[in-house]
Amino acid sequence: MKIQRYRHEMDHSYTLGATLTFELVKCAPELASRIFISSETELSGGIGELLKLCGQNEIPVEKNDKAFNILSPKGNCFVIGEFRKRSGKLREGSHLVLANPSDAGNLGTILRTAAGFGLKDIAVISPAVDCFDPKAVRASMGAFFHVNIEYFENIQDYMARFPQNHRYAFMLTASTPIRRISIREPYSLILGNEAAGLPEEYADFCETVIIPHSRDIDSLNLPIAASIAMYEFTKEKWEG
Amino acid sequence: MKIQRYRHEMDHSYTLGATLTFELVKCAPELASRIFISSETELSGGIGELLKLCGQNEIPVEKNDKAFNILSPKGNCFVIGEFRKRSGKLREGSHLVLANPSDAGNLGTILRTAAGFGLKDIAVISPAVDCFDPKAVRASMGAFFHVNIEYFENIQDYMARFPQNHRYAFMLTASTPIRRISIREPYSLILGNEAAGLPEEYADFCETVIIPHSRDIDSLNLPIAASIAMYEFTKEKWEG
Repeated sequence: MKIQRYRHEMDHSYTLGATLTFELVKCAPELASRIFISSETELSGGIGELLKLCGQNEIPVEKNDKAFNILSPKGNCFVIGEFRKRSGKLREGSHLVLANPSDAGNLGTILRTAAGFGLKDIAVISPAVDCFDPKAVRASMGAFFHVNIEYFENIQDYMARFPQNHRYAFMLTASTPIRRISIREPYSLILGNEAAGLPEEYADFCETVIIPHSRDIDSLNLPIAASIAMYEFTKEKWEG
Repeated sequence: MKIQRYRHEMDHSYTLGATLTFELVKCAPELASRIFISSETELSGGIGELLKLCGQNEIPVEKNDKAFNILSPKGNCFVIGEFRKRSGKLREGSHLVLANPSDAGNLGTILRTAAGFGLKDIAVISPAVDCFDPKAVRASMGAFFHVNIEYFENIQDYMARFPQNHRYAFMLTASTPIRRISIREPYSLILGNEAAGLPEEYADFCETVIIPHSRDIDSLNLPIAASIAMYEFTKEKWEG
């Protein structure tokens, strides 16, 4: 099978790096179609473990330097995994809802925090960045394989599927600070695009929330705002 | 004066982009040595405002396409500011302390949140990434010009200067979750390197704190952990 730089239309994507590929093989071996190593890959230590796990799961391992030239031209990666894309399906319960996120690295960072705080069902409202983009997978540090991501055409489709969820929209124009919100489960924590935030109309069908901050900045960065939102809503659960 | 790609040894750095350059000229006009515009820069709207402000502050404006080729080869930037580097000096009070951060983008994102939550005095313990790196300045979205950053050779030097501060070290090996901590001011919120975290010895001279999370991830990303720490410690102040 030909190796090509990742594009949205493809039915597979890649894990660039050993740790990430280990997460793939450990958490979703049924999706892994093959693993590439390069002639520079040292087969000792962690890599040995990884190859053993590939053997147990009957995942083919190819020595293929060309794959690295094509997929990781900067050359800072010695193991690559190829995996089949599988669309997620949101379960009932609380969700994180990202409306129109545009940056793959940001999306990956948010997935990492979401897995960390146990919000493992994530709705993405289109248009939005592709969650299978290797940059998103990489920024998630493997959390990608612990969460469930479903894309929706628009927020109305999402609301029709989960009408019982209490919707909290994080907006700079909101007047209720996050600490004053009474948390009602199941909830949907909704955040907008990096540059534009959420459209004003979200105030018509959501309780609006603000994370108060000084006027020295225009807004918090999206992964930071999403992470504080998830932290505040889930922290009872993680109390020591 | 010759234009060169930024290096640590230089006595000046750059703001890449109009919004960022606007923050420079507004918040620290005394540091701005010159502003570059390109032949593609549209002189209307916000740029007009910026040029007016430069005039008022006697900051020279040069049309210089070469500056853009050297400093922003990707070509997504139409205004560049050149500014003199000035070392900050920490004031008494509460601080954020970053021990050995290694990524410029992460540092910038943290500065943005720090300015947002009013923690405007930031100690950086060497070795560490250069806060004047244009990537850090850019990721701060201008917050760089609202905060005060001082580098210390080691944590002992920092402690000798601010012995009265209550030190909270964020470590994965800590047993006290962040919500159970009693906050004593002035405080120092201390976070370690992206990959290595804080050395164990910090437990000898700090109260250790953990932000609890699931086992699906190894750790939170550094800017996320730092932001949640700052949010939790400052939130009384920002109550609506």
